[in-house]
Amino acid sequence: MTAIDHAARRDRLAAALAAAGTAALLVTRAEHVRWLTGFTGSNAALLLDASGAAAIATDSRYTTQVADQAPGLRCVTARDCPPALLADYRDGSAWPGRAGDPGGPARVGFEADWLSFAAAGALREAAAGLGLEPTRGLVEDLRLVKEPAELDLLRRAAAVAVGAYRDLLAAGGIAAGRTEREVAADLEHRMRLRGADRPSFDTIVASGPNSALPHHGAADRVLARGDLVTIDFGALVDGYCSDMTRTTVVGGAEAADDFAREIHSVVLRAQLAGLAAARPGTGLREVDAACREVIAAAGWGEYFVHSTGHGIGVDVHEPPFAATRGRGALAEGMTLTIEPGVYVPGRGGVRIEDTVIITSGESENLVDLPKTL
Amino acid sequence: MTAIDHAARRDRLAAALAAAGTAALLVTRAEHVRWLTGFTGSNAALLLDASGAAAIATDSRYTTQVADQAPGLRCVTARDCPPALLADYRDGSAWPGRAGDPGGPARVGFEADWLSFAAAGALREAAAGLGLEPTRGLVEDLRLVKEPAELDLLRRAAAVAVGAYRDLLAAGGIAAGRTEREVAADLEHRMRLRGADRPSFDTIVASGPNSALPHHGAADRVLARGDLVTIDFGALVDGYCSDMTRTTVVGGAEAADDFAREIHSVVLRAQLAGLAAARPGTGLREVDAACREVIAAAGWGEYFVHSTGHGIGVDVHEPPFAATRGRGALAEGMTLTIEPGVYVPGRGGVRIEDTVIITSGESENLVDLPKTL
Repeated sequence: MTAIDHAARRDRLAAALAAAGTAALLVTRAEHVRWLTGFTGSNAALLLDASGAAAIATDSRYTTQVADQAPGLRCVTARDCPPALLADYRDGSAWPGRAGDPGGPARVGFEADWLSFAAAGALREAAAGLGLEPTRGLVEDLRLVKEPAELDLLRRAAAVAVGAYRDLLAAGGIAAGRTEREVAADLEHRMRLRGADRPSFDTIVASGPNSALPHHGAADRVLARGDLVTIDFGALVDGYCSDMTRTTVVGGAEAADDFAREIHSVVLRAQLAGLAAARPGTGLREVDAACREVIAAAGWGEYFVHSTGHGIGVDVHEPPFAATRGRGALAEGMTLTIEPGVYVPGRGGVRIEDTVIITSGESENLVDLPKTL
Repeated sequence: MTAIDHAARRDRLAAALAAAGTAALLVTRAEHVRWLTGFTGSNAALLLDASGAAAIATDSRYTTQVADQAPGLRCVTARDCPPALLADYRDGSAWPGRAGDPGGPARVGFEADWLSFAAAGALREAAAGLGLEPTRGLVEDLRLVKEPAELDLLRRAAAVAVGAYRDLLAAGGIAAGRTEREVAADLEHRMRLRGADRPSFDTIVASGPNSALPHHGAADRVLARGDLVTIDFGALVDGYCSDMTRTTVVGGAEAADDFAREIHSVVLRAQLAGLAAARPGTGLREVDAACREVIAAAGWGEYFVHSTGHGIGVDVHEPPFAATRGRGALAEGMTLTIEPGVYVPGRGGVRIEDTVIITSGESENLVDLPKTL
């Protein structure tokens, strides 16, 4: 495993601030503080200036942990972290770049998507004399193309989930007589034992008619022979997510009816077309269209009711988005799920989902699982 | 189980709006939309006016589900729910109270703690002609004293966790040779099988020296005979949380050393004092003091590094807060955890936590588990 270099990430962010003419950024999303420092405490904020100077804030419960996880970073101890960091910056004595305040009051950006309206209002007092400026997407943009160390973590998060699903299959865990909830609990337990901190989202086990509901959870329905069963699951491992879906038939392919075979065959062809399209330079609409056209040509177009895929990393859903109105193109080092589906109300549905890493050639598929019924 | 009356909740909120002189409230926190309507979809908002008229918004993925879970509520179908509801209200044709717009442009409140600064800014366009007003705590205030139906759900969420912990004990699950992670996974699996949708927070299994860290998670440390093991856990069942903690010694009380016996005895006495203090009319500082004084008198005061407890309901941590700077007093129908602890760095710690319902007499303890080592 390549080690994560948090200081290098902060340097990249500082360069982005300098380019944007923002003196400093107040990072308030806990996942972003972690991404930039390694600190995993639940109460934290980070202030970084365009020269690369930084301070983290957390409360006294985490004094030992922050020193351990983010060595070398100056820490301001406070219960309410964002105003404490602003006050520290306003004071300026610990910020070399603020000496003499060249150019007048500094403009400090804050993460407008990751601070409530009320909390942003509460910053005004602490910011007196500083210009406060809402910013969007500064850290998100850096997270779009993954570093080698992140790709290793994503491979590991996927392997935990893949291994657990294989264990479930080997144990005969998708069987008539079990409830959806039991199957979900079984799979989640196997992910946990293989190193997941928790599922990366609520596991979906959608059986029989429930398989026609793309956002069904896992309920008390009992699986029966011949049911379609869609299982959509993933693991959170060391802060990185995995996400994958397989649809099988209880009792195996020989128990499948013609409807199940037909829509499974269509979705599988669509999914393979999407995988083939996932290359650097390809537009995200084109990836979506690659899947959608196969399904439409087979006459099931109206039943593919969601978009084709999304990026994955610290968040289980993050840019890029492969959709009919998707923007931009794929680039090397991005991640993408390819997850077409067909859902026929009252009858059932099929979804097949892999997660890939975009490489210079064929994409790297993180989901090594069979796609048969 | 008493059924939840969502319409009655909306009527209480409408009355609060009328009292506050707010024409309508835009509810953007998904948990609050669920609390007021029963709808559990991940993308939702609700607009309610002071006369009690309401509309919900969600996207097309949830059309069937919203009709099923929130029958009788008018639904606006939109991907971006808050501006769509504001536009619907501005149009006014479906809002009897807006006919002729008596008294000029209506003031519409929004949940300032549950809308990002960026999303609040994006509302301004949709709100053109309406006055937008940040509000705080309107729904939270209604949630403070629990309804009979909520108390039933909280009892059930607690029973799921209690049953799982008893199963764990009966199976010899807290044993030398297991890792903290294995114990946590085992307990979570047992909660899931008993009906939990997921743990209500990340399970803590803190063993040996880790037990001195109140916010330790569950890591790779292997349990050994004589270790203190603090397990802090809870279940989310039908949207309601439970929360409880027990500290035991691997190998049982006979394996405990004098230090473990001493701090366990002190924490237990403190916890019982807190339970005895939890009655309607008692100040939240007094409940905290009841625990704190016992620990201080025994000479361990500096090692009780957190507050005594918190309310629980839809959120695992919610008002009221029993702390040295807690405000207000307990009332019948509130919930409270009582969870004093002593944490001695390098040596170990003990925490004992129950959740109680405040009644007119002695509080009702939801955690029927032994408190012995």
